[in-house]
Amino acid sequence: MADLAENSSVRGCMVIKPYGYAIWEKMQSELDKMFKDTGHQNAYFPLFVPKSLFEAEEKNAEGFAKECAVVTHYRLKTDPDNDSKLIIDPEAKLEEELVVRPTSEAIIWSTYKNWIQSYRDLPILVNQWANVVRWEMRTRLFLRTAEFLWQEGHTAHATKEEALGETKLINKLYADFAENFMAIPVVQGLKSESERFAGAEETYCIEALMQDGKALQAGTSHFLGQNFAKAFDVKFATQSGGLEHVWASSWGVSTRLMGALIMTHSDDNGLVLPPNLAPIQLVIVPIYKGHEQLQSISSVADNIKKELTKAGISVKYDDRDNFKPGYKFNDYELKGVPLRISIGPRDIEKKVVELARRDTLEKKIVPLEGLVDHIQIVLNEIQNNLFTKALNFREEHITEVDNFDEFKSVLSSKGGFLSAHWDGTPETEEAIKKQTKATIRCIPLTEIQSEGKCVYSGKPSPKRVLFAKAY
Amino acid sequence: MADLAENSSVRGCMVIKPYGYAIWEKMQSELDKMFKDTGHQNAYFPLFVPKSLFEAEEKNAEGFAKECAVVTHYRLKTDPDNDSKLIIDPEAKLEEELVVRPTSEAIIWSTYKNWIQSYRDLPILVNQWANVVRWEMRTRLFLRTAEFLWQEGHTAHATKEEALGETKLINKLYADFAENFMAIPVVQGLKSESERFAGAEETYCIEALMQDGKALQAGTSHFLGQNFAKAFDVKFATQSGGLEHVWASSWGVSTRLMGALIMTHSDDNGLVLPPNLAPIQLVIVPIYKGHEQLQSISSVADNIKKELTKAGISVKYDDRDNFKPGYKFNDYELKGVPLRISIGPRDIEKKVVELARRDTLEKKIVPLEGLVDHIQIVLNEIQNNLFTKALNFREEHITEVDNFDEFKSVLSSKGGFLSAHWDGTPETEEAIKKQTKATIRCIPLTEIQSEGKCVYSGKPSPKRVLFAKAY
Repeated sequence: MADLAENSSVRGCMVIKPYGYAIWEKMQSELDKMFKDTGHQNAYFPLFVPKSLFEAEEKNAEGFAKECAVVTHYRLKTDPDNDSKLIIDPEAKLEEELVVRPTSEAIIWSTYKNWIQSYRDLPILVNQWANVVRWEMRTRLFLRTAEFLWQEGHTAHATKEEALGETKLINKLYADFAENFMAIPVVQGLKSESERFAGAEETYCIEALMQDGKALQAGTSHFLGQNFAKAFDVKFATQSGGLEHVWASSWGVSTRLMGALIMTHSDDNGLVLPPNLAPIQLVIVPIYKGHEQLQSISSVADNIKKELTKAGISVKYDDRDNFKPGYKFNDYELKGVPLRISIGPRDIEKKVVELARRDTLEKKIVPLEGLVDHIQIVLNEIQNNLFTKALNFREEHITEVDNFDEFKSVLSSKGGFLSAHWDGTPETEEAIKKQTKATIRCIPLTEIQSEGKCVYSGKPSPKRVLFAKAY
Repeated sequence: MADLAENSSVRGCMVIKPYGYAIWEKMQSELDKMFKDTGHQNAYFPLFVPKSLFEAEEKNAEGFAKECAVVTHYRLKTDPDNDSKLIIDPEAKLEEELVVRPTSEAIIWSTYKNWIQSYRDLPILVNQWANVVRWEMRTRLFLRTAEFLWQEGHTAHATKEEALGETKLINKLYADFAENFMAIPVVQGLKSESERFAGAEETYCIEALMQDGKALQAGTSHFLGQNFAKAFDVKFATQSGGLEHVWASSWGVSTRLMGALIMTHSDDNGLVLPPNLAPIQLVIVPIYKGHEQLQSISSVADNIKKELTKAGISVKYDDRDNFKPGYKFNDYELKGVPLRISIGPRDIEKKVVELARRDTLEKKIVPLEGLVDHIQIVLNEIQNNLFTKALNFREEHITEVDNFDEFKSVLSSKGGFLSAHWDGTPETEEAIKKQTKATIRCIPLTEIQSEGKCVYSGKPSPKRVLFAKAY
């Protein structure tokens, strides 16, 4: 209803509408800056992966094979039985099928093979903004779509330490972005083996908690070891004259972040946007009868708009005559515009405006004098308030549980993250998942060693991990 | 050799390398700003087009059917005969094939059907940055690749005049961008019927001339009439209570512009970049022996870099110790960096630097004092000089020809654009193409009526058109 996106006529694929795309552009722009500030460059690699390359890293291939869109032909022809229809031209069958990239490690590492000869060619710190396709059976707007937009970083390093350092650096960068820019608190952690990226040695992640008590994986950063270098035979001459396989990382966030945004900050009136992400940060709505009143309000509004724009705030003045103020109020509330100013004829006399906050729904009368400064302060307050509110909610929804009855009862009554001891085996993880639908979201980086007994098996556990139902 | 792009292991698909991609990002950023300044918004539509939608606009379907990549399956499985191989899972055959978009009119107009009910919903001014796939038989880096990156605008209007106005506005915008930003002179014109976009009523274009005398279509803007609205049944309630089909335009430029850039400005030493497009506008290379000299040069260089950066100029200081200055000079020449400063120990004593221009290859000694101002002036000069040089070349290579012998002789000796009378028939166009490989590049917008006789058939012609061999 906030006009962000809609389902398309292609199964599982979405249309991102202009308002939704404008929010995505804000995310892209900030992330892109953060990547470049940490030494990364953008590049672009092919959409298609020949099947033989796709197969090369076995675990990765196995992990994605079940959800691949596959191109088999390169031409359509007119249907001989119905000349307004087209059919596949059987003579245009590809010798080798092409997989539409579900992720680009395979195509990129087959390219890096030619880029890397010596330690002098390292590190390679490359990012790509692209569309990828994973043929999910159950899809949901922004959260799980067959095609989605993302960025994927693919780096190559001379040492294990450097590749691991990069993996952690980016996970930290993602956490900073989610918290400081999107106002979404996240837990940084490691995935258990069964939740790891196919082909990775270790997957770092940021996990957020939605208002319905379910967790959402908001970004992942993978330490790939030498798996792809070995699969694609990428070696480099070391400084000391040896020949070694290259170390790698890969990492990504996607339009899924739009889902995280919606489900973290929305309320019953619609979307609530942190000012950093709002395409329109402030809307001005005139309250008037007749052309004369509108004119005098417009002259004040135009002036406010000019001053705010100069201060770097994005403003819309909505003087459309075919919509009533009440309709406009609702519409901008639905769309999550952080601040609304309304101006009536009496406000002009008194040299004030009414300022309404989207996050708290508070309204107050504010003098025109000093308005720009005031608005900058309030925008900051909103950004901080949204983060604090989400953080409090998250903190209230991390519950320590020490036996499986408690686990099940908290999960079904309160939801959220369950902090519980786990014996470290995939079998226990699987059994818990089967019985409760909760999975290990991550092993938090901040969690300290504290011996205990597995909440399910009672076997020894070195520390607590976070379980939750997840999107 | 300038490290812009390379062929990939996927037939006809390219890898755009970081340096090439950084240039493309400059183009994107400027175009995106120009689109937004003229009221357009970005959105995103699916990569795939179901075959039944693809068929809906017959001419469009016919035009692209022969070069479509088609997805037929959504899953791979392990080959039962070889468990390290994958094969298509025959049980995962799609009920309806999906075409990888060669252009997005079909998927977008099937979406607009839901967006447009009334005149109040118009105009829709939407642009998309995306990848598209056209299965070309003969491919060439940047110029003709199976997958390429582009932007495609798709607009919907209440009247023919408005849609036509938009079509022309964008063609003019493309011309401004090519000339003022890329320093590439273009001819604005109309395509003949046979060169028109499949499904358009009229195609406007910008045509550039490469240094080898061949023309390159650098951008197109199509007036689509009501063709797609009719094919997808998109009608709107008019202000006066009627119900009418919507009018449309679509327009695009692509990574082909990278090809235009390379072939317009390069010389025997490599790429030559207009300052507007240069990821590095100025490089500083130290000339030194030993650590002490390097240190004192670095302190001057760092200071220059700081001052230039503050003035908005992008600077790289290349103090790598494992490459000689001569190697660096060559490398930055190859890469087309507009300006190079070299600094030796004596320069520091004299408070000067050596400044070398990439476009003219001139070097001169310049005092440190006033350096920033001087460099800004020279960067402007380079931008203008590249345009003037290309414009002079283009003007020298438009030749009026009045009979077919002259046509053939100029085409084979001098090349370039031939300005010739044409009788307006596709038959003549086809015959000329067959005999000479030259096609009508456009009917220039500036060409005035001047009756004459067709260069091929001798029949009456209302005005001259431009022929050329083309990429």
